[in-house]
Amino acid sequence: MRTRFQHGLDELREKLLRMGGLAEQAVDRARQAYVERDLTRCQMVLEGEGLINTVEREIDEAAFDLLAMQQPMAVDLRFILAVTKINSDLERVGDQAVNIAERVMDMTELPAVELPVDIARMGSAVSAMVRRSLESFIEAKVELAQAVLEMDSVIDRMRDDAFIQLVKTMNERPEVVRQALDALLVARNLERVADHATNIAEDVIFWVQGADVRHNVGVESSESSDPTRRTPRVSGL
Amino acid sequence: MRTRFQHGLDELREKLLRMGGLAEQAVDRARQAYVERDLTRCQMVLEGEGLINTVEREIDEAAFDLLAMQQPMAVDLRFILAVTKINSDLERVGDQAVNIAERVMDMTELPAVELPVDIARMGSAVSAMVRRSLESFIEAKVELAQAVLEMDSVIDRMRDDAFIQLVKTMNERPEVVRQALDALLVARNLERVADHATNIAEDVIFWVQGADVRHNVGVESSESSDPTRRTPRVSGL
Repeated sequence: MRTRFQHGLDELREKLLRMGGLAEQAVDRARQAYVERDLTRCQMVLEGEGLINTVEREIDEAAFDLLAMQQPMAVDLRFILAVTKINSDLERVGDQAVNIAERVMDMTELPAVELPVDIARMGSAVSAMVRRSLESFIEAKVELAQAVLEMDSVIDRMRDDAFIQLVKTMNERPEVVRQALDALLVARNLERVADHATNIAEDVIFWVQGADVRHNVGVESSESSDPTRRTPRVSGL
Repeated sequence: MRTRFQHGLDELREKLLRMGGLAEQAVDRARQAYVERDLTRCQMVLEGEGLINTVEREIDEAAFDLLAMQQPMAVDLRFILAVTKINSDLERVGDQAVNIAERVMDMTELPAVELPVDIARMGSAVSAMVRRSLESFIEAKVELAQAVLEMDSVIDRMRDDAFIQLVKTMNERPEVVRQALDALLVARNLERVADHATNIAEDVIFWVQGADVRHNVGVESSESSDPTRRTPRVSGL
């Protein structure tokens, strides 16, 4: 039988997945808005920010309530802390999507120009990172999280390439400097989304590996002779 | 008499202040490095990142241990959660300082040019925000935290001004486009530091006001008849 506490943990996980879905959707929309110069999608990203912020607060409150409800075992504690961290990162992914949408809105006021940067490709790679970081969370798989960490350097390289090419463009074609700058900032925003996906992957590793390491502490203590008496589980303080 | 748990809370606070000092120092050094084109200070910022990351992990572990040690009262729980959030923001302030140092290193490879942006002034304002956000934490003062929130829009305006002026420069003087871009990115990094200071101020408000609201729950429960028996402090779940 699942306890109320375990049920609360399940709900927390569900909420975080919803949050992840919203953040991922925001990035996808921002990327498509860039590719198609689509102001409607920009508007959707801006309007979605409020909901993301609301869900972020709900998750923080739910985590707080779970911690206040009873003294969690070490493995659950690590899970809850990982959720609050991942939650912050997802909210900031949403912020980056808003930044991208704002750049796109700036770009659409200017003539469309060819630029030596493949934002669509970079955006797809970054979306894949976010998606996989969430998968590594759902499946509690360190290997998946490791794969996200490895993708981060690929994104960094794409960003560096974009940087070099776009600065060159700005030098050679002053008439498109603003468009090139917008594209460069979008590349930077995407790189930041990748950084957040990396943070999420690191939090998953902290949770899963920490849980492995510390699990026994919690189990030991919960098997102590008097279950009504809760003694400190971590010694040395 | 202070319990071990309270002692642990004091230590956590001390550690976070140390972290704050490191992050603030990193921003100050990065700003000075920009103003004086000083590679030595850039190097100090880059070398300081490792320590900041180490202290971040120490704080997370200390927070974890405190939560695992005993079931904290609601007010302490909110404090510990605020610390972990502020901790993340301070680490990212350090990252922004590194980004600025990297831009400065790029700039020093290029001829020095006059640019229509006052990074020194913006940097001072941002440093003040970080300092005050930490003060609002030390003194648990919502008014100080509110003041930080108000400063954020000033920084945003400075960033917007810098943006407009520097894009104009890039248009008119293609030969300094890279320096102008470096300055623009530094302005963005400073704006992000201000965002983190804002996050910290919000976390302080969450902690202090949440503590006011929820304090009574904890106090009531700590006065329960049998102090050795720790029952869940939040009812209804």
